[in-house]
Amino acid sequence: MAVYTDVSEAEMHALLQLYDIGDYHSHVGIQAGVSNSNFILKTDQGKFVVTLFEPHRVREEDVGFFLSYVDHLKAHGVGCPQTYKTKEGALYTVFKDRPTGIFEFMRGTCGDIAIHTPKICSEGGALLAKMHKVGDSFEHEAPNLFGFEKLNEWSKSLCPQANQIQEDLCAAIESEMAYLNKNWPKDLPVGPIHGDYFDDNVFYDGETAIGVIDFHFVCTDFYLIDLAIALSAWCFNGANHWEEERYRSFIQGYEAVRPLSDKERAALPVLLRGAAMRFLLSRLEEKLNYKDGDFVVPHDPLVYFERLKFFQTYDG
Amino acid sequence: MAVYTDVSEAEMHALLQLYDIGDYHSHVGIQAGVSNSNFILKTDQGKFVVTLFEPHRVREEDVGFFLSYVDHLKAHGVGCPQTYKTKEGALYTVFKDRPTGIFEFMRGTCGDIAIHTPKICSEGGALLAKMHKVGDSFEHEAPNLFGFEKLNEWSKSLCPQANQIQEDLCAAIESEMAYLNKNWPKDLPVGPIHGDYFDDNVFYDGETAIGVIDFHFVCTDFYLIDLAIALSAWCFNGANHWEEERYRSFIQGYEAVRPLSDKERAALPVLLRGAAMRFLLSRLEEKLNYKDGDFVVPHDPLVYFERLKFFQTYDG
Repeated sequence: MAVYTDVSEAEMHALLQLYDIGDYHSHVGIQAGVSNSNFILKTDQGKFVVTLFEPHRVREEDVGFFLSYVDHLKAHGVGCPQTYKTKEGALYTVFKDRPTGIFEFMRGTCGDIAIHTPKICSEGGALLAKMHKVGDSFEHEAPNLFGFEKLNEWSKSLCPQANQIQEDLCAAIESEMAYLNKNWPKDLPVGPIHGDYFDDNVFYDGETAIGVIDFHFVCTDFYLIDLAIALSAWCFNGANHWEEERYRSFIQGYEAVRPLSDKERAALPVLLRGAAMRFLLSRLEEKLNYKDGDFVVPHDPLVYFERLKFFQTYDG
Repeated sequence: MAVYTDVSEAEMHALLQLYDIGDYHSHVGIQAGVSNSNFILKTDQGKFVVTLFEPHRVREEDVGFFLSYVDHLKAHGVGCPQTYKTKEGALYTVFKDRPTGIFEFMRGTCGDIAIHTPKICSEGGALLAKMHKVGDSFEHEAPNLFGFEKLNEWSKSLCPQANQIQEDLCAAIESEMAYLNKNWPKDLPVGPIHGDYFDDNVFYDGETAIGVIDFHFVCTDFYLIDLAIALSAWCFNGANHWEEERYRSFIQGYEAVRPLSDKERAALPVLLRGAAMRFLLSRLEEKLNYKDGDFVVPHDPLVYFERLKFFQTYDG
């Protein structure tokens, strides 16, 4: 469990002194979602999520940006956890050397648990569109550390070892990057994106989407790449096969709130390929840098290689 | 989603007519746990889980057995969901041609989410021991369809194709089965076992285990095989490495409630190998019978092959 920061009962008590959210009852580490250290904290006032943003994942200068984006969503009626401020009104505190925030515990059913009915997907799309719609009035910006520039860097640095994972993977990456460099759009609408809008980050009450979580990839980029990432995650089933009905439902839900421009619509096939490439490369890096004994199992990059191959033949 | 039975709002309304648990609010299919069809149902009286036991997984004659075991646990103070009876007092009804039960929705944190601290593991062990302790007074019996006899059947039927998955897997299975046939114990304490006591079937409040779910593998066999299955699931980390501390904590929690006899203690190393073999073979069958387009991704049998190899060198 080396990637986690342990928090003792005494330490959690001390953290709670800084907040007005009640007296300590219990806490438990959350194993799922391994980017940062997360705990479910119970006090006599309810259930909270405590996140210690880990330095290998998150730069401290971005934490204020994430959290003010969450507040912006909340203020505009988009479902998401409330952030709790310290008694002094700070968005986060530094606890065990890590920027640390406290969030409302999201109730409801996590989207990766729910069967992906058309309603589940269209609600997922609509919630993402709402985030984009209110994004225009969010005034802060942060660079996308996993944006298109990073894909070029990764493909150069990872290619030499990629064939360890699968023969010819390097050649496939190089030829896809050549295609993407030639076709990547330049002037699509830009704003804050979630960056990791997978189904396990969305909560439901019945089939109604009620909130989104996990904001540590939030940054400024094309809204359309956020949609493409979401589609690349939501629309493949457990056997990694494309589900056209999920795709249609997700897009329909999205466009009911924020219709795509003609330019966005035309660029979507390229951005779907870019989204698949982004996770192929980040997982490749995770896998190649995996050290025996690491607590976190690396995701399988080939899942996204299959998705990329699908998108290369798909014109949406 | 071929393995699931869809349930419409109108059908769920009709089902609710048979019960006294309030008026329909909403329902959503649960994707996780794919043996049967599960739904979260909300009524004006709360949240429930509706399970349609699927014929390819569960024999109707066993459903009454499972459910009366759950009631037995509840009556003896072991944490588990309450079962809801129909207005006529039946443990289950037949709905859409499937035996169907309604359960209390378990609150708390699912054990596969929680970090496996020593307390989490000892609590998991203690809850299993409580189940075994009260099992002695449960008067019904049902055969273990995935017991030792089945291992011999599977190893014979699957061996010819096993080398498709990994070279020499067949030889490894045959030699292990020879060992197990020679060493399998005959006279250990017997009673109802859970049969699938993985961490995702246990719920926690903070670090306190509050309940167990998923009873469709419940049957009669050695209590010790239940413990061995649990250890084979709980004590490997995400990188599939053995965690001795989890093992010590789980056993310590178990024995604080139900100490193992000398005979059980001596048989444990063999049963750990048997538990690994049970999941190696069931996953092998799942994988070999997997048809392209099946909704459910087969588990990787090699995860349990690695665990088997570990147990072959481990004397606990």
